[in-house]
Amino acid sequence: MTAEMFPKEKTIDLRKKHIGPSCKVFFSHDPIKIVRAKGQYMYDENGVRYLDCINNVAHVGHSHPMVVKAGAEQMELLNTNSRFLHDNLVQYAQRLQATLPEKLSVCYFVNSGSEANDLALRLAWEYTGHKDVITLDNAYHGHVSSLINISPYKFHQLANAEQSKSVHVALSPDLYRGNYRQDHPDPATAYADDVNNLIQKAHEKGHKVGAFIAESLQSCGGQVIPPAGYFQKVAQHVHQAGGLFIADEVQVGFGRVGTHFWAFQLQGEDFVPDIVTMGKPIGNGHPMSCVVTTREVAEAFKNSGMEYFNTFGGNPVSCAIGLAVLDVIEKEDLQGNALRVGGYLMRLLEQQKEKHPLVGDIRGRGLFVGAELVRDRVKLTPATAEAQDIIYKLKEQHILLSADGPHRNVLKFKPPMCFSEEDADMVVEKIDEILTDIEKALGLQMPSTVHTENGSHKRNVQPEENGCHHSNGIGHSRDTSQQHASQQNKRLRP
Amino acid sequence: MTAEMFPKEKTIDLRKKHIGPSCKVFFSHDPIKIVRAKGQYMYDENGVRYLDCINNVAHVGHSHPMVVKAGAEQMELLNTNSRFLHDNLVQYAQRLQATLPEKLSVCYFVNSGSEANDLALRLAWEYTGHKDVITLDNAYHGHVSSLINISPYKFHQLANAEQSKSVHVALSPDLYRGNYRQDHPDPATAYADDVNNLIQKAHEKGHKVGAFIAESLQSCGGQVIPPAGYFQKVAQHVHQAGGLFIADEVQVGFGRVGTHFWAFQLQGEDFVPDIVTMGKPIGNGHPMSCVVTTREVAEAFKNSGMEYFNTFGGNPVSCAIGLAVLDVIEKEDLQGNALRVGGYLMRLLEQQKEKHPLVGDIRGRGLFVGAELVRDRVKLTPATAEAQDIIYKLKEQHILLSADGPHRNVLKFKPPMCFSEEDADMVVEKIDEILTDIEKALGLQMPSTVHTENGSHKRNVQPEENGCHHSNGIGHSRDTSQQHASQQNKRLRP
Repeated sequence: MTAEMFPKEKTIDLRKKHIGPSCKVFFSHDPIKIVRAKGQYMYDENGVRYLDCINNVAHVGHSHPMVVKAGAEQMELLNTNSRFLHDNLVQYAQRLQATLPEKLSVCYFVNSGSEANDLALRLAWEYTGHKDVITLDNAYHGHVSSLINISPYKFHQLANAEQSKSVHVALSPDLYRGNYRQDHPDPATAYADDVNNLIQKAHEKGHKVGAFIAESLQSCGGQVIPPAGYFQKVAQHVHQAGGLFIADEVQVGFGRVGTHFWAFQLQGEDFVPDIVTMGKPIGNGHPMSCVVTTREVAEAFKNSGMEYFNTFGGNPVSCAIGLAVLDVIEKEDLQGNALRVGGYLMRLLEQQKEKHPLVGDIRGRGLFVGAELVRDRVKLTPATAEAQDIIYKLKEQHILLSADGPHRNVLKFKPPMCFSEEDADMVVEKIDEILTDIEKALGLQMPSTVHTENGSHKRNVQPEENGCHHSNGIGHSRDTSQQHASQQNKRLRP
Repeated sequence: MTAEMFPKEKTIDLRKKHIGPSCKVFFSHDPIKIVRAKGQYMYDENGVRYLDCINNVAHVGHSHPMVVKAGAEQMELLNTNSRFLHDNLVQYAQRLQATLPEKLSVCYFVNSGSEANDLALRLAWEYTGHKDVITLDNAYHGHVSSLINISPYKFHQLANAEQSKSVHVALSPDLYRGNYRQDHPDPATAYADDVNNLIQKAHEKGHKVGAFIAESLQSCGGQVIPPAGYFQKVAQHVHQAGGLFIADEVQVGFGRVGTHFWAFQLQGEDFVPDIVTMGKPIGNGHPMSCVVTTREVAEAFKNSGMEYFNTFGGNPVSCAIGLAVLDVIEKEDLQGNALRVGGYLMRLLEQQKEKHPLVGDIRGRGLFVGAELVRDRVKLTPATAEAQDIIYKLKEQHILLSADGPHRNVLKFKPPMCFSEEDADMVVEKIDEILTDIEKALGLQMPSTVHTENGSHKRNVQPEENGCHHSNGIGHSRDTSQQHASQQNKRLRP
């Protein structure tokens, strides 16, 4: 069975003609046409199967029958706006609330992570009466204009980036490459103090901080796991300044981290954000998202006098799909699977680190894992071209992985939550082979002693190539990829 | 068969507990619980049928089987992001393009009208390098922060509204209540000159105008039909200033106006906007939307160096649904139906105007119709309470209609496009009865001569109650509605 209407070349031509050229495809010099998908596997027009290691949107597995059924049945019955009462809306809100700390009890349903983060800012601005926002370096929070402003990952891409005067960029709490590392006695306090310094500087200019926003684990920023206790200390500083703490769970929520349902919970039970935003996995691909906040914030927003209406947000179909996703996570114990398989994957990758000099750091929680590649374990020189090479070679072997972070040198695992140990074995085995080839061609060997590796002494290397990349994820232009491929050829076939 | 999970009271309680209090329901003192819908009819939990005169989202009719089937089948196969090639995306873009003037050839798929209008602003800002935006009075363009800024309909609701210095509000081209009316020799030029004056004032302050944005027909602003030729003249001024013309078709596109597929086409074939945004009806309730622009604008946006990625936008399920909607519009000749039934509805309403002094103006195109109620046809005093009374009394008779506009005195018809002449007969008959009762209670009679009516001489009455309403559409708070009901009781039962 084929679901193809056009030959691939025609699809590419029509795309060039009618789709915005800023919208990139993966592997732009030889993009993939996918016609169906199931679980953690995607299939191209010739029936070739790809293992999907990157799609955190297809959270409970591509085309999950329970999700499809829930959506189809509700579409047949009713799909309308939330100005009418409907049980799906309130039942879904109740179910979501049960996964969260009690004080996070009021939901707003919207259509995308971007709409959620924009609304979170509106809530914070209204509640605090303050305009300034503190964001982390390399952060990505969405594509609407208010969020480009607070997304260094995006605005660094602009030739003539003009940073808003009301946005302050704090250090990314990166223990591998950041200002304060594993060997620092108290990186949580040191990174939180940086946020406090920004608050004080804003105050000196007569500004007031309305919100601190961070992904609970930085995703596009390079799979960064902030030290436990960091969020508590930041929240203390931000609250002191009259601001709110927004935890962006768009990429990392819904059980992905394995031990907890929400990634902010990794910081400890004593931490509760003021606002949580959700997105990507919430509807397994259906466009929906949510903002949850406290009664106090919600009432202040109401008291502004402005109604909030979102045409599609919280419609019965979206909520039926959201409910089905929660059911599947529970029924198939996908959070448990993320913990088990994620742990297994981390152990396999740690073995790669022991074997391959290019593997600088392995970090992750559950099925949110990063492998940072470096040319030099002391200088931490990003192995950007090598990371891209791995991604392209994996694609040739029908495995989809991406490289991200400010240097695009972090291999990023965030597969559908039904990912198995066999899948982990397969991808790591291929990575092993590719790394072996690359290192052989480059003449790289493991250092004879391990005590010179990262963590053994403090370094203050600053990111050198920040903003050098021009695309999100693994897509890049034909020119870049060809140039890259030819560089690789030179290196690998001297 | 019932699709109810909770008794209605429980649904209301859970909603109060878990849904943001800024999210209003229709008829808040006695909201409706809808459990299914078909065509232009919605059904409550007791099987009571409501005629839907307001839902322009359920464009081809609620739960249309062809749309449901297309969505369900594609969900079963694949739902992923647009970084993979897929035929649905390019086929849909091609089909959309075929409905538009040739130079509007490049599409960006997003998830909501708000995302579409925000992206339109980003395109205009990037292409022109100018920051200022001209918007119409009473306009509504969406709920994300950048759009609240350009939506007087929303920011007038705020107690302490602070208008952005880069936003300029032009006169609404309202021929009934605006500065220049039916009797003006050339209202198109007069209103366009107002836009030009704003441009000149912006220039005097050293500002530059990046965009003029307007709904092709103002919807929330009071079903306003701009005079033909107005957009051409505005576009001339805006282009001269280096800005772009954005036509917001979110509420009014996809054949609703009957004679044309897009409402901006009512202005004449010589008018082509630089950017068109689409939304609500595009997916018959499924969250999706689109921005279409010219190759030049799209290339300039690309040249900024920033990728545009939208997680859900343009996914195969959304595009399958979008294609099905286009198919149904064609197959069932819904554009033709809008023209025929809309014309019939207008004639029925015109008869009401001849009979009822409260009916000040009937205006519309196709199935986008407004009936403006006034207490005095010379002073144009808005009959706000009477309009609300009609809405509530129609609800008791199981007809859903809304009142909107800056004075909430415009009865607003924008039903699913399968609306029939029988439906029109039914709603107008009920309105006739209700108007008769209200006018009797108020002691209102038709003026003995008609030549003092609107249009016979120029008036410059300014809106007196702008910003007085606190909700979008017909929802309002329990307190307000009770107060209103008691006022009505006083008036109707003296």
